[in-house]
Amino acid sequence: MRTSRAAVLAKFDEPLQLTEFPIPSALEPGAALVRVSLAGVCGTDVHLWHGQLPLSLPVILGHETVGVIEQIGPGRVTDWTGQPIAPGQRITWSSSIACGVCYYCRITKQPTRCLKRKAYGISYVCAEPPHLFGGYAEYIYLRPGTSIFVLPDSLPTEAVVGAGCALATSIHGLERLSAEWQDTVVIQGTGPVGLACLALARDRGASKIIMIGGPAHRIELAKRFGADHCIDVMQTKPADRRKIVMDLTDGFGADIALECVGIPQAVEEGLDLCRDGARYLVLGHYGDAGTIPFNPHVVTRKQLLLAGSWGFEPRHTHAGLKFLARNRQRFPFECLISKPFTLDRANDALQATAHWQIGKSAIAP
Amino acid sequence: MRTSRAAVLAKFDEPLQLTEFPIPSALEPGAALVRVSLAGVCGTDVHLWHGQLPLSLPVILGHETVGVIEQIGPGRVTDWTGQPIAPGQRITWSSSIACGVCYYCRITKQPTRCLKRKAYGISYVCAEPPHLFGGYAEYIYLRPGTSIFVLPDSLPTEAVVGAGCALATSIHGLERLSAEWQDTVVIQGTGPVGLACLALARDRGASKIIMIGGPAHRIELAKRFGADHCIDVMQTKPADRRKIVMDLTDGFGADIALECVGIPQAVEEGLDLCRDGARYLVLGHYGDAGTIPFNPHVVTRKQLLLAGSWGFEPRHTHAGLKFLARNRQRFPFECLISKPFTLDRANDALQATAHWQIGKSAIAP
Amino acid sequence: MRTSRAAVLAKFDEPLQLTEFPIPSALEPGAALVRVSLAGVCGTDVHLWHGQLPLSLPVILGHETVGVIEQIGPGRVTDWTGQPIAPGQRITWSSSIACGVCYYCRITKQPTRCLKRKAYGISYVCAEPPHLFGGYAEYIYLRPGTSIFVLPDSLPTEAVVGAGCALATSIHGLERLSAEWQDTVVIQGTGPVGLACLALARDRGASKIIMIGGPAHRIELAKRFGADHCIDVMQTKPADRRKIVMDLTDGFGADIALECVGIPQAVEEGLDLCRDGARYLVLGHYGDAGTIPFNPHVVTRKQLLLAGSWGFEPRHTHAGLKFLARNRQRFPFECLISKPFTLDRANDALQATAHWQIGKSAIAP
Amino acid sequence: MRTSRAAVLAKFDEPLQLTEFPIPSALEPGAALVRVSLAGVCGTDVHLWHGQLPLSLPVILGHETVGVIEQIGPGRVTDWTGQPIAPGQRITWSSSIACGVCYYCRITKQPTRCLKRKAYGISYVCAEPPHLFGGYAEYIYLRPGTSIFVLPDSLPTEAVVGAGCALATSIHGLERLSAEWQDTVVIQGTGPVGLACLALARDRGASKIIMIGGPAHRIELAKRFGADHCIDVMQTKPADRRKIVMDLTDGFGADIALECVGIPQAVEEGLDLCRDGARYLVLGHYGDAGTIPFNPHVVTRKQLLLAGSWGFEPRHTHAGLKFLARNRQRFPFECLISKPFTLDRANDALQATAHWQIGKSAIAP
Repeated sequence: MRTSRAAVLAKFDEPLQLTEFPIPSALEPGAALVRVSLAGVCGTDVHLWHGQLPLSLPVILGHETVGVIEQIGPGRVTDWTGQPIAPGQRITWSSSIACGVCYYCRITKQPTRCLKRKAYGISYVCAEPPHLFGGYAEYIYLRPGTSIFVLPDSLPTEAVVGAGCALATSIHGLERLSAEWQDTVVIQGTGPVGLACLALARDRGASKIIMIGGPAHRIELAKRFGADHCIDVMQTKPADRRKIVMDLTDGFGADIALECVGIPQAVEEGLDLCRDGARYLVLGHYGDAGTIPFNPHVVTRKQLLLAGSWGFEPRHTHAGLKFLARNRQRFPFECLISKPFTLDRANDALQATAHWQIGKSAIAP
Repeated sequence: MRTSRAAVLAKFDEPLQLTEFPIPSALEPGAALVRVSLAGVCGTDVHLWHGQLPLSLPVILGHETVGVIEQIGPGRVTDWTGQPIAPGQRITWSSSIACGVCYYCRITKQPTRCLKRKAYGISYVCAEPPHLFGGYAEYIYLRPGTSIFVLPDSLPTEAVVGAGCALATSIHGLERLSAEWQDTVVIQGTGPVGLACLALARDRGASKIIMIGGPAHRIELAKRFGADHCIDVMQTKPADRRKIVMDLTDGFGADIALECVGIPQAVEEGLDLCRDGARYLVLGHYGDAGTIPFNPHVVTRKQLLLAGSWGFEPRHTHAGLKFLARNRQRFPFECLISKPFTLDRANDALQATAHWQIGKSAIAP
Repeated sequence: MRTSRAAVLAKFDEPLQLTEFPIPSALEPGAALVRVSLAGVCGTDVHLWHGQLPLSLPVILGHETVGVIEQIGPGRVTDWTGQPIAPGQRITWSSSIACGVCYYCRITKQPTRCLKRKAYGISYVCAEPPHLFGGYAEYIYLRPGTSIFVLPDSLPTEAVVGAGCALATSIHGLERLSAEWQDTVVIQGTGPVGLACLALARDRGASKIIMIGGPAHRIELAKRFGADHCIDVMQTKPADRRKIVMDLTDGFGADIALECVGIPQAVEEGLDLCRDGARYLVLGHYGDAGTIPFNPHVVTRKQLLLAGSWGFEPRHTHAGLKFLARNRQRFPFECLISKPFTLDRANDALQATAHWQIGKSAIAP
Repeated sequence: MRTSRAAVLAKFDEPLQLTEFPIPSALEPGAALVRVSLAGVCGTDVHLWHGQLPLSLPVILGHETVGVIEQIGPGRVTDWTGQPIAPGQRITWSSSIACGVCYYCRITKQPTRCLKRKAYGISYVCAEPPHLFGGYAEYIYLRPGTSIFVLPDSLPTEAVVGAGCALATSIHGLERLSAEWQDTVVIQGTGPVGLACLALARDRGASKIIMIGGPAHRIELAKRFGADHCIDVMQTKPADRRKIVMDLTDGFGADIALECVGIPQAVEEGLDLCRDGARYLVLGHYGDAGTIPFNPHVVTRKQLLLAGSWGFEPRHTHAGLKFLARNRQRFPFECLISKPFTLDRANDALQATAHWQIGKSAIAP
């Protein structure tokens, strides 16, 4: 029997365990077996590792993955657009599967809040066959109902994983609270989500984009992606940053600010960088990192608009791939990934992301 | 020389002083002298009295007023629609005047945040002639540029003052964050703003409206205005209220919740009454009443949308009068006003509003 | 073997043929067999009968139907909200089934233009088993994937069929081009679509609704549904109607006009009833009834917004049922249906609709 | 007394007459006298010359102009943002002045349809002093209430006139019917409006832009502005163009098509280039050029959205200047203007625009 190695999160805050699982020989109708080419390590994986999100263990992490189809189940297996897929095709897929029927799927049309939503690399326990439900592995098993996307040759694997779930998340976020044409935009955070927001805001005709982030290698990336101004969060205090933003906005503040950090204090600071009537998107708070003091009077008086956005739908993955293919030169997301880690160094990959050591770490099994 | 009595706020938290002012005999071009018929006492007046908003003293309070034109300045004086006005006409007017030119007036199109905005009964000190810039008086002087509205005979003075600035404020609020057709709506507060929101949400086809408020006489009004469910805030705890709202919404929470209270804790409670993907309008926080703990993770995870809204524009007053004229039977706003106070009892009128003793107090000089 | 009678359209413009079909004894998983209680006769059925829409024959007409579940297929069969259904329940269903995967379903999110859309009473030929795919019959066979809605006891069958597909169609139409709060609305047509638009516009807070239609019994219904003004199309000419509308709108014209007639000349007239900057919804043109002369300069100069809307999605049926349940007194749609026809008088029912003899004809087999 | 030469349209379809007018020595408060640097010749000027729009003669044409302030009226004269202006500043201005009070200005908020709107170079007869109300002149007199914009040094006069009113018109048009992020866009016309729409759609993240126009020198400009595909209208027939567009859109048609031509048949063709559910903007029909046959059934069945847009507001001029300053390299609008004509060759300048001989003709007096 063939086997696949996988890096398993068996206990919170402990090293991932390299484990061998049997590869299923027979697939269900509609399923696909995929050989992993490259698996992204997302900031959310760090939250999961810390147990900051509800999670049943053991789990094979990895929810942003590119691979090559090795085998498909009986009958017709199709991609998200209804086209049949076949072994040998290079694909990615939307990490989560919504039920399509529940209150949030059908009535409010917000499937990211689906009551039965399941995500690869997060919600599928790997204890039972077919086990292989995460990207930190040699093989992954895609269930029927997975939203699969065949990648065009022009789009390198590194660009797709480099953009990762951050791009689709950001597309969804800007759908909920849009950076409008000619807006002055403040983006808090220069990680993958911050950079994706930068690329998207630039592409939609933002007038001026001010990035707040770090460390230096990420600020370099932000400049390469076309940021107008970058403020190094390591070398400034909130008051410094406020002064810079006000100076760059005639003293009024940003039209829209996008929080892509995940630290509650960033929200406090960000609201203060907004002009009256501005919009503020809380996009980075996937983990529960505690509360901040919040004054409702400010929301009324400044007539602010605040929004949150959770995850993304398959159509956002679709839009992201279209965006990447169209903007290869302008936004080289492959630059986020330097040298992929091997599967047996999955822990190092996770730590590299946890400590912002590189743009984005990835695992090439 | 003719004089007008007026109730003057000379010192915060002290009784208003009945003062006599000369009535100007000559008016500027574009100005109007109006004999006050009825002046509403707004919750904001209580905040002003406490000094909870930036304010220079002395001031004649009163920013929601109906009166009869006694005299107009030389040349053509017009109402908001450009029609000439004349002595004898019964009018109301938008309480504030925006400059029309500044960054917020011109570029962001949010004149409620005009950098030079001035409001009758709030921002005009009464120390200098023509003194009479507030509604708690026998006469009021309307400057050139005031947005004046001639009242149709079918619309009683009591209905216009009963709706007061709460109606225009609510119209603006729902423009910023709309109660959409067939929404389930929770409204926190049964004061004038809460009742106005109730009437507006009903008129726009809300499916189910749950009011949280009190005391009993206001809940009676809410029922008369068509509330589906009323929860008495005096006789319940937050957990009780949450249970009731969840039971009424299949366990999900409201599509939209409207805060019309002004107490920070209401925001904390209100966000918890919302379903995932809901909208929340902070409409009642005109005074700075302090902070609450706030978890940005909740905004991301529940993908909430929060908005604030400040004051209103003349076009909202216009819309409000149209709404009142169209809904006389359905929403009898005159019922908010029981027996007007005389001008020499202006302090009692203010206290009646401060202590929620009646729907809305008013002064008939 | 049990049989069901059905009225079959075998040849365009010829009488429907009463035919006996076998009732399938075994159902597929997910399917349901329903005993028809009442089947609406829609204006579209008249178009279909004339062959004015692409159609393969023979077909059992009838796409707006209420019935009682007699039998369900093996396994779990659910309604649109995912709840299991069972024999004995009174239901209705969305007439069409979209594929959920094609370009229009997935990418543009307009499933009413699904490339593989099929509708009961329209697109299913009845030549092959299980034959029973239309409402003009004793029994109807609902395929897996049908969007089924269980009716609450409070909602009479006649109200559901009286509202028919016109209500869901109108909800979709107003979603594409909304009658906004306090708009002045002109509605061309007092048939089921016109009346549904009237009810919906009223419920959303339209300020003034002017109906143009006839004959007298339909104008009576429009008044009962709360129209502010009714213009009898039989007793006026276009110039008369224009004068009335202009007089009712201060000489400017309507904020929005809704075409619910299906006659091209109505569009010509309707555009002329609009103010500058108005919106115009072409909602009634399900059949190809030819062209009108059209001047693009008028669209530019008056800066008009025109929209079309085709059919509806299951969520519009869901919204329609919620609307009906909430507005039983205000909009008594059951009044559209006088006395149902028996199945052997299906031809008479069709002619009654063709000639506007009654509000809406229906067949009670 | 000083005089200014001006090119006067005294009779339709006849050559403009070079006329000498006295320059007013005293200015009203709020007015400004401007020495013209460069005046654009707009396609609308050709329509005016032919008498295709309502117009009183004689008129000095020219409504897109850059000049240098020579003198200002007494008191404070300000630009559109409220900043004081002074002689020596290089400025442009919004061509029209709305009353700010009428039904369209106040209630519908569509000041481009202002009942009292007046435009330089169009609506001001030059028979009476101060005569100088058009751009084809050495001097122009700007009335109080004109929306003036001071030009930054970085923005060349040629770029501002090259973009002309076409840019502000297009910004307004796309505000009414937006080219959304990642849309496939067809633009009919490669004149100034078509090129402006191209630049704007590109800047907002259009996915694919297909231009239909000509002649060759304009197609060159379209390519330089970043068009993905250009179809030469001179060398193709409608059926050819449809085939190309369908091939480029997977057989579906454009998400949005923008008509920037002014020929009614373009609308007929354009609607046919749209996918189901598409949007179509009629932006080029400033003159009445007659009717086309139009089938309302197509609007319903394809559920199209059509919009018209007329002129622009000062805020669109403001946005246009911001856009130009931000995109100097990407969209070099100065390239539309080759060699300006002198004032005594104003007729030749007009004919050059009438016959599409160059990107855009301009007059440098």
